[in-house]
Amino acid sequence: MKTFYSPAHLEHAPPEEFEGGRLNPAVEVPRRVEDVKAEIARRNLGPILAPDEFGMAPVARVHDAGLVRFLGEASELWRKRYGEDAPPALPSAWPARGLRNRFDGDVEARLGTYAFDTATPILKGTWGATLSAVNCSLSAAHAIKSGERSAFALARPPGHHASADVFGGYCYLNNVAIAAQRFADRGLKPAILDVDYHHGNGTQSIFYGRGDVLFVSIHGDPVFAYPHFLGFADERGEGAGEDANLNLPLAMYSGWDVYAQALATALARIRAFGPDVLLVSLGLDTYEEDPISRFKLKPDDYLRMGEEIAALKLPTLFQFEGGYNLDALPTITANVLEGFAAR
Amino acid sequence: MKTFYSPAHLEHAPPEEFEGGRLNPAVEVPRRVEDVKAEIARRNLGPILAPDEFGMAPVARVHDAGLVRFLGEASELWRKRYGEDAPPALPSAWPARGLRNRFDGDVEARLGTYAFDTATPILKGTWGATLSAVNCSLSAAHAIKSGERSAFALARPPGHHASADVFGGYCYLNNVAIAAQRFADRGLKPAILDVDYHHGNGTQSIFYGRGDVLFVSIHGDPVFAYPHFLGFADERGEGAGEDANLNLPLAMYSGWDVYAQALATALARIRAFGPDVLLVSLGLDTYEEDPISRFKLKPDDYLRMGEEIAALKLPTLFQFEGGYNLDALPTITANVLEGFAAR
Repeated sequence: MKTFYSPAHLEHAPPEEFEGGRLNPAVEVPRRVEDVKAEIARRNLGPILAPDEFGMAPVARVHDAGLVRFLGEASELWRKRYGEDAPPALPSAWPARGLRNRFDGDVEARLGTYAFDTATPILKGTWGATLSAVNCSLSAAHAIKSGERSAFALARPPGHHASADVFGGYCYLNNVAIAAQRFADRGLKPAILDVDYHHGNGTQSIFYGRGDVLFVSIHGDPVFAYPHFLGFADERGEGAGEDANLNLPLAMYSGWDVYAQALATALARIRAFGPDVLLVSLGLDTYEEDPISRFKLKPDDYLRMGEEIAALKLPTLFQFEGGYNLDALPTITANVLEGFAAR
Repeated sequence: MKTFYSPAHLEHAPPEEFEGGRLNPAVEVPRRVEDVKAEIARRNLGPILAPDEFGMAPVARVHDAGLVRFLGEASELWRKRYGEDAPPALPSAWPARGLRNRFDGDVEARLGTYAFDTATPILKGTWGATLSAVNCSLSAAHAIKSGERSAFALARPPGHHASADVFGGYCYLNNVAIAAQRFADRGLKPAILDVDYHHGNGTQSIFYGRGDVLFVSIHGDPVFAYPHFLGFADERGEGAGEDANLNLPLAMYSGWDVYAQALATALARIRAFGPDVLLVSLGLDTYEEDPISRFKLKPDDYLRMGEEIAALKLPTLFQFEGGYNLDALPTITANVLEGFAAR
């Protein structure tokens, strides 16, 4: 399997995120990708390649122009306002019910208008890293279109929480959605399977009204889990997208027994959709010792997950998303890929 | 002039607020009210009285039941989730465009659903202080209905940023709106003049569709000033409230020359409305050395402000709102009251 990787992600190293009333050390950190990369090399899972450049056109197919422009200039505007030594940009007020969106406002107004949390800081290197992640995803898509059975976009920041015009959840642009749209634009029918512990609210939103892209997600029930405000079972798509969205929220502390059943349901739905290509939002925060999540999957379960996904016999793009247990992350990520390749 | 004061506000002592990407020392602190109280006593501006208890019915006339219930239980739910030693409750994710409000969710979901900023922490003593502030406002309203020319609700937390179902901007329940509604419910026609540096978005929202309550605000232009998402000149009311809302946003660094013109415009509009009673959202953060604001009013300007307001010859309720220069706050607050009383 080809893995696409760019060192540009190293420039996006958030020191902290704000939750629970305090600034906590960031968990979405460069070491995540670096250590997985080393494990892929160690296990000889295939070549690790630099991405090609695809420009902004594929991004514009998915994202709002105002969000893209803002993300590109936010760090500079923030430092102009708060000084070069200011902490990374984070919103502190937003347009709740009765307030007006400010798509053309100053940096505080636009941060509040375009963000949905305080865990997704914008640093000097964030935009470069974000674009490099998109290029990794598009390179993986290109490899698959060129005949590869699978490819892995080993990139960060992740993407599945970013919608067309809102960013958050450590995500700025939606890598997997941009790749899925690329397939659709080339006449291929994509299905997206999101196995991150956190619901892929951004991906769901982007395709919610469309019947040409299936979105299926297995995740911690938003009754208790981030992102809180989307990911319920009653969200089934709308209009042309009706029944092209399937959420499988699971209870706290779910282990492989429960998870495997949901995965079987998800794969059956994907099979029934008849896609040409599968994209997997590969979050590894379902692991039993993930620091911010509450499922109970064990390392060997990820081999099973890879095998089950392979049984679909579809060209498959793996997109790196969440997963924050730094010690286990290389093993469990590589286990999915190895399980997939073995089948 | 009777001043209403309760020591319950002392239990609401936020240590910090989150803005500019960092936790900063809170500026909306108990000393604000304590020092103004001492200055009122020193200048012999009238008796300082304990408020009566009015119960929850007057609150329910203005605020959404879900917000009221949440504010009452948020601190306990937060401490159950994060522990007794947790910092005060602050939101870290919210339902931006495409996400669902969670009016019945867990504490994180409801914080995000009901709040619009990260500067308004909920502590153990917040709810008690909030209710005591409402009781001060209602006591001041009662005094005026009983024949007093004026009364001062010297209370915190402030209220003018809180709408029917959203809190923020150091505000939880909207004291001045609850008092205005009380007057309206007793057959009196109220006008509200908001002279806080920050637009009174909550008060505006509460009365936006109504023609029986006038709202006029002079404030820093939301193009650069908090609350960013409301307070523009084109907001003139809607439906029955059309033309019963007047915003006078002013440029950065406005001094008394510019301010006095806006005040004259505001007072002319109030006169034309023909109200029975005036409520003044008395923010003192227009002061030239306010730490978080950018107008340039000087101490003597507040005497003029009081005199100009008195010239309306209306029964007048002064409601304490913002103002964060702790050294100047007692003087400039008392100057408004003294200027009013002198005329």
